[in-house]
Amino acid sequence: MADDHDRTFAARLDRVRASMRDRGIDVTLLSVGADLPWLTGYRAMPLERLTMLVVPVDADATMFVPRLEVPRVVERPDVFTVVGWDETTDPVRLVAEAVGAAREVAIGDQTWARFLVDLLAVLPGVRWRRANDVVGPLRAVKDAAEVASLREAAAAVDRIAAELQSGGIPLIGRTEADVSAELSRRIVAEGHERTNFAIVAAGEHAASPHHHPGDRVIQPGEVVLCDFGGTFPLAGSGVGYCSDITRCVYTGEPPAEFAELYGVLQDAQQRAVVAATVGRPAEEVDAVARERIAEGGFDGLFIHRLGHGIGTEEHEEPYLVEGNREPLVAGNAFSIEPGIYVAGRWGARIEDIVVATTEGPLALNEADHGLAVVDA
Amino acid sequence: MADDHDRTFAARLDRVRASMRDRGIDVTLLSVGADLPWLTGYRAMPLERLTMLVVPVDADATMFVPRLEVPRVVERPDVFTVVGWDETTDPVRLVAEAVGAAREVAIGDQTWARFLVDLLAVLPGVRWRRANDVVGPLRAVKDAAEVASLREAAAAVDRIAAELQSGGIPLIGRTEADVSAELSRRIVAEGHERTNFAIVAAGEHAASPHHHPGDRVIQPGEVVLCDFGGTFPLAGSGVGYCSDITRCVYTGEPPAEFAELYGVLQDAQQRAVVAATVGRPAEEVDAVARERIAEGGFDGLFIHRLGHGIGTEEHEEPYLVEGNREPLVAGNAFSIEPGIYVAGRWGARIEDIVVATTEGPLALNEADHGLAVVDA
Repeated sequence: MADDHDRTFAARLDRVRASMRDRGIDVTLLSVGADLPWLTGYRAMPLERLTMLVVPVDADATMFVPRLEVPRVVERPDVFTVVGWDETTDPVRLVAEAVGAAREVAIGDQTWARFLVDLLAVLPGVRWRRANDVVGPLRAVKDAAEVASLREAAAAVDRIAAELQSGGIPLIGRTEADVSAELSRRIVAEGHERTNFAIVAAGEHAASPHHHPGDRVIQPGEVVLCDFGGTFPLAGSGVGYCSDITRCVYTGEPPAEFAELYGVLQDAQQRAVVAATVGRPAEEVDAVARERIAEGGFDGLFIHRLGHGIGTEEHEEPYLVEGNREPLVAGNAFSIEPGIYVAGRWGARIEDIVVATTEGPLALNEADHGLAVVDA
Repeated sequence: MADDHDRTFAARLDRVRASMRDRGIDVTLLSVGADLPWLTGYRAMPLERLTMLVVPVDADATMFVPRLEVPRVVERPDVFTVVGWDETTDPVRLVAEAVGAAREVAIGDQTWARFLVDLLAVLPGVRWRRANDVVGPLRAVKDAAEVASLREAAAAVDRIAAELQSGGIPLIGRTEADVSAELSRRIVAEGHERTNFAIVAAGEHAASPHHHPGDRVIQPGEVVLCDFGGTFPLAGSGVGYCSDITRCVYTGEPPAEFAELYGVLQDAQQRAVVAATVGRPAEEVDAVARERIAEGGFDGLFIHRLGHGIGTEEHEEPYLVEGNREPLVAGNAFSIEPGIYVAGRWGARIEDIVVATTEGPLALNEADHGLAVVDA
C-alpha cells in the first residue's frame, strides 16, 4: 500500500527521469552518497559489496543489493524492485547487463571509483556523466517537509550555541578535542541521529578553517571558533537533514583589534544574508561579503567560498562561490559563512543556514551573532 | 627531521612503487579511503573539494589539497610535497597535469566517482586500474606495531563483550537502538577514537546479518546478536586500527533447538580459526566452516563469506570467500565469523579477529565463545 513517502519517492523519480531526458542521459546509476536515500529512502552501506540502483530513462528501476543486506531495504514497488546478489556473484556484471546498450550513463558522485573502474572495463562504449548534474538541481530545491526538518536541525544547534555563548560549556583549561567531544554528545542529545563534525579551534588554530581539534588547551584571552553540525531525522523518510552553525566566543575581553575584525565580519555576514534573494546569481552573494571584508581592511584573508547548499548532505548544490552564475531559486537552502583568517594569530567565522524564499531570505539559525565573552 | 613514522611511510612508498613496477602502473592516485592515511598519515576529508596524492612510479609524489585544509596536513618531505589549490582552481586539471602522458593509472578504490568521471574527460588515453591491486596486498600484511594496535582494539571490545555476557548491559525492555547506542558509547570509552558500527539484532532480526538496530524492544526468551567495532588510534601514525567482534546472548534459557544450532556454529567457528594457517588458500578456510555447518543440518543457512581482512579499514584484503585461492601469509589479519540464519525466526554469528603467524593462527579476541544466558 503506497504511503506518503512512496508518493514522494515516486514523484522524485519522475523528476529524475525528466531531468535525464533533458540532458540526454539513458541510465543513471546510484550507490553510496545522498542521491540514493533521497530517491528511495535507502542508504547504501559504504562497504566493498556493491549496492546500486539502476534507473533507465524509460524502464523500471532495479536496486542490486548484497543478499545479506536485502532485509534492510524497504521495498517500494512503485519506485524500484530489489535484486539480491550472492557472495560468489559479480555484481558489476549484473549492473552492466541492466545498463545494456545505453550510451550515456550517469553515475552517483560518491560511488566508489573501484566500481566505476570495473564498469569501464565491461562497458567500453559508454560516455560517463555525473549523476549530480541530474539529481543535484532537484535536491537543491527543498519542499516544505525538508525545510521544516532543516529548521528543526537549526533550532537544535542554536540551543547548543546559546549554551556556549552563556558560558554553559566550560572552555578554559580544556583541550579542543574535549570540547569537540562535548559538542558531539550535545548534538545527539538535542535530537540529531548523528554528529557529522565539531570543529573547535582556539587562538591561532582559528586561522585554519577546517582545523582538526587536538590536544591544545584553551587559554584565557583567546578566540574559540566552534563549527558543528549533525543529521536530524525526518521521521519515516529514511533520510535526515543537516545542521551546520559557526559561532565564535572569546575567553575574556577581546582586544580592540580583534573586536574590529569581528565587527567587519558580522556586518559582512549580515549583508550577505540580506543579499541572498531569489533570482540573485550565487556568485554575487559571495561578492557582497567579500567586498565588505576587503573594504574593512582584510582583503585576501577570506580564503574560502561564502557557502554551500545543505540538505541530506552537509555540502551540496548550490555553492555560493565565484564562478557560479546560477541564480538562487525558491527552496534553495545554503550556508552563509564568511571568515577572516590571520595565519599564526587568530581567525573568526560566522555561519547561518538560510533558505531562499519568494518572501526573501529566511535565516534558520537565530543564535546571537555577536562575539560572546565567556569565562571573563 | 625524519621520525619513526617518516621512515615507516617512506618504506611503504618504496614498496608501493615496487608493486607499481610489477604491475606496469605508471601513476597511482589516492584520495579518500584508507590507502592515503596508510601511506602518508593524512586522511582526506570526504567532501566535494578534492584531496589527491599523485604517486608517479619514478618521480616525487605530490599531494593536492584544498587551500583551506593545508594546515591540517603534516608535511613529510621524504614522502610527498603539498600543493594547496584555491577555491576558483580546477583541481582535476592540476592532477591531470601531474599525470601527464602516463598510460596506466591506478586510482584509489573509494575515490569519489565524480572525480574519476572528470578525469576520464581530460585524460582520454588512460587505462584505469584499481589502486587496491597495488596497495591492498601490502596493507594486508601487518607489521608488529599494527598487530599490537589490532590486539589493543580487540582487548577493548572483549571487555565490552564480557560485560554483555555477564549481564552488565541490561537488555530486556530496551530497544535495539538504545542498546546499540550504549555499545557505541562504550566503544569510545574503552579507548577507540570512533565507533564504526554496533549491530544489535533481537529474535527474528538476528536472521538479518547487517540488521539496522531499530525500535524493536528486546523480550525475555530470545537471542540478541551484537556485532560491534571501532577504530583504535595508533599513536602518532595518523591512522587507527579496527576492532570487530560478534557475540550472541540469550535472554533466558535457550530452547534445545537453538542451543543445538549454536553448538554447531561454535564448533564451525573454532575449526575455521584452527584452519587459518599460513599457506592455506583463503577459500579453504571458508569451506571448513561451511562444511561443518552443512553437516550439522544447516546447509544453505550460512549466507555470507567467512570473513574479511581488517586493519585501518573494517573490511580489506584478504577476503575469506569461495573463489579466493590466494594462500594466507604471515601478518594477514582477518575476521572468522560464520553465522546461521533462519529467516523469520532467529540467527546467530560468532566472530573473532585472527592473525596468521608462522607459529599458527593467533586469535586476538578472547571473550567467551559460549551462548551466555542473561537476565535469566
